[in-house]
Amino acid sequence: MEIIVDVMSGDNAPFEMIKGVCLASKEVTANFTLVGNEGKIRRIANENGFDIRRFDIVHTDEVITMEDDPLSIVRAKKNTSMGVGLKLLAEDKGDAFVSAGNTGALFTGATLIVRKIRGIQRAAIASVLPMQPPVLLLDSGANVTVTEDYLEQFAIMGSIYMKKVYGIDMPRVGLLNNGTEACKGTPLQIEAYKRLMDCQSINFVGNVEGSAIPFDACDVLVCDGFTGNITIKSIEGVGKMMLSRMKQIFNSNTRARLSAILVSEQLMEMKHDYDSTEHGGAPLLGISKPVIKAHGSSNAKAFKNAIRQAVHYYDTGVIYEIAKESEAFGPNK
Amino acid sequence: MEIIVDVMSGDNAPFEMIKGVCLASKEVTANFTLVGNEGKIRRIANENGFDIRRFDIVHTDEVITMEDDPLSIVRAKKNTSMGVGLKLLAEDKGDAFVSAGNTGALFTGATLIVRKIRGIQRAAIASVLPMQPPVLLLDSGANVTVTEDYLEQFAIMGSIYMKKVYGIDMPRVGLLNNGTEACKGTPLQIEAYKRLMDCQSINFVGNVEGSAIPFDACDVLVCDGFTGNITIKSIEGVGKMMLSRMKQIFNSNTRARLSAILVSEQLMEMKHDYDSTEHGGAPLLGISKPVIKAHGSSNAKAFKNAIRQAVHYYDTGVIYEIAKESEAFGPNK
Repeated sequence: MEIIVDVMSGDNAPFEMIKGVCLASKEVTANFTLVGNEGKIRRIANENGFDIRRFDIVHTDEVITMEDDPLSIVRAKKNTSMGVGLKLLAEDKGDAFVSAGNTGALFTGATLIVRKIRGIQRAAIASVLPMQPPVLLLDSGANVTVTEDYLEQFAIMGSIYMKKVYGIDMPRVGLLNNGTEACKGTPLQIEAYKRLMDCQSINFVGNVEGSAIPFDACDVLVCDGFTGNITIKSIEGVGKMMLSRMKQIFNSNTRARLSAILVSEQLMEMKHDYDSTEHGGAPLLGISKPVIKAHGSSNAKAFKNAIRQAVHYYDTGVIYEIAKESEAFGPNK
Repeated sequence: MEIIVDVMSGDNAPFEMIKGVCLASKEVTANFTLVGNEGKIRRIANENGFDIRRFDIVHTDEVITMEDDPLSIVRAKKNTSMGVGLKLLAEDKGDAFVSAGNTGALFTGATLIVRKIRGIQRAAIASVLPMQPPVLLLDSGANVTVTEDYLEQFAIMGSIYMKKVYGIDMPRVGLLNNGTEACKGTPLQIEAYKRLMDCQSINFVGNVEGSAIPFDACDVLVCDGFTGNITIKSIEGVGKMMLSRMKQIFNSNTRARLSAILVSEQLMEMKHDYDSTEHGGAPLLGISKPVIKAHGSSNAKAFKNAIRQAVHYYDTGVIYEIAKESEAFGPNK
């Protein structure tokens, strides 16, 4: 397997990205193509003793920033690490692509350069929420407005992902809504509820409220990208706040520090469970080849986990399964 | 001051409601009118030694259930504790109304029976999020779809509430969105951003992402009721899950139980801060008299806090200030 990596994008690029690839190369059997400024990559590797001899490097001299318009990836900036990486993937120079860069640009670039699976109307960003057991939320930000058609396809793609990657036999699909009754939500949710109810390819369990998300209500949660983005960020924000509050408590005095020692193992485990760096990246479901969005603030460990996820996504044949299922959908709209 | 209380609605009605009124009557200077089944109220008071001699009782024999259609409050069920209570408020038989019942019915009843403040297009449910410092989120569920006009009025009403009730001089207003840039969101948010930017009556600080909500990004957060409902419930859900995880940790073995003793005070404080029963109820901002929605699962303490909030809401003249400000809006649309 050949993994193409954008090492120039992300808050901590390129240092943490290069380090992440080095870590990943010890854990997975794959070749790596690093896309980015060759001079910088070699300098950082030299300065930090990263062994990058086995990696291919494709030189690019531009970077998509977080402020860039998503369309700049195919218009104003033709030679970015993200854009060139996606082109390499589209040209079958690799099997998967990982980037921690601008989400909108990655989504737009993946859709326009790598292209969607035939029959899929919109790709979606699928994020694993830090819950036990995990919940796959999609769309988590790419499509601010959606139709019931998109939501039905999100449900099907998410089910295949959770079945193949997490080994869940009949993933339970929920529709994120402001109440459990079928009549709840805006006209979109009311229509989508009926569509999901009638869909034979999924195991629809009905509407899921925000309060039920952490309590094993479903395995796949579908919604528009606007609501999804706000939900996932709110959940991460509250988790972060509560962990920081606990840290404060355990550092407040000597007794508290002693207390922390007594439960340190369990506390580390809890922190681990809610640590977004542990969960790898988010696959862009519906794109015809594996594209993984790593968190913008990824450190080396998070980036390594995103690479591992790319391998797993590729190996389990999720895209093949989605393509088989989507043959029934007819041509793209 | 005369407070009208619906003692028949809520998961734990009427027992916890009657007990809550008894607790409140010791803390606030007010008369109470209990609306509900007189026989049941007297029996429960007798059986539990609740002293209800100083309270007026208005007998009703029907209850709006959680499953009832919101419009049933003015149509099918004419003699419910909630509907009669709202009528008493509309007829000036009291100064404020508190209910833990069906949110949709309370909102519909308040709008149709008590009526909105002149110039206000839609009332909103305003919920205080369990953050330090507190954040007022509106609309938290009544209007699943809104316009930029509504959002502007929500921003003005929320600012007045936080100024009067929480003593914040220039409350910072944020627009809940999927990114901080002005171009983010659906067409609604893009328009609303401009409107809020131009609004002279508020201190608009721009778009606020879900991840920023717990970190003091604003005092008032406006959004449509669909997104608001999912956001508040997600936040409550994750808080609940993490507190229960901590409880598990501290109960896991003897060492852990010892650990908990060492930080018990701080843990109780943290639990208190995220405990929805501590935060009273949600005012229906835009209604011409104080109507407070208590949490459906309220116990006596939560209901007492909702009653205290009704008193505070009345005393601080929020409604008068909103009415003054809304004179500029012209007649209701």
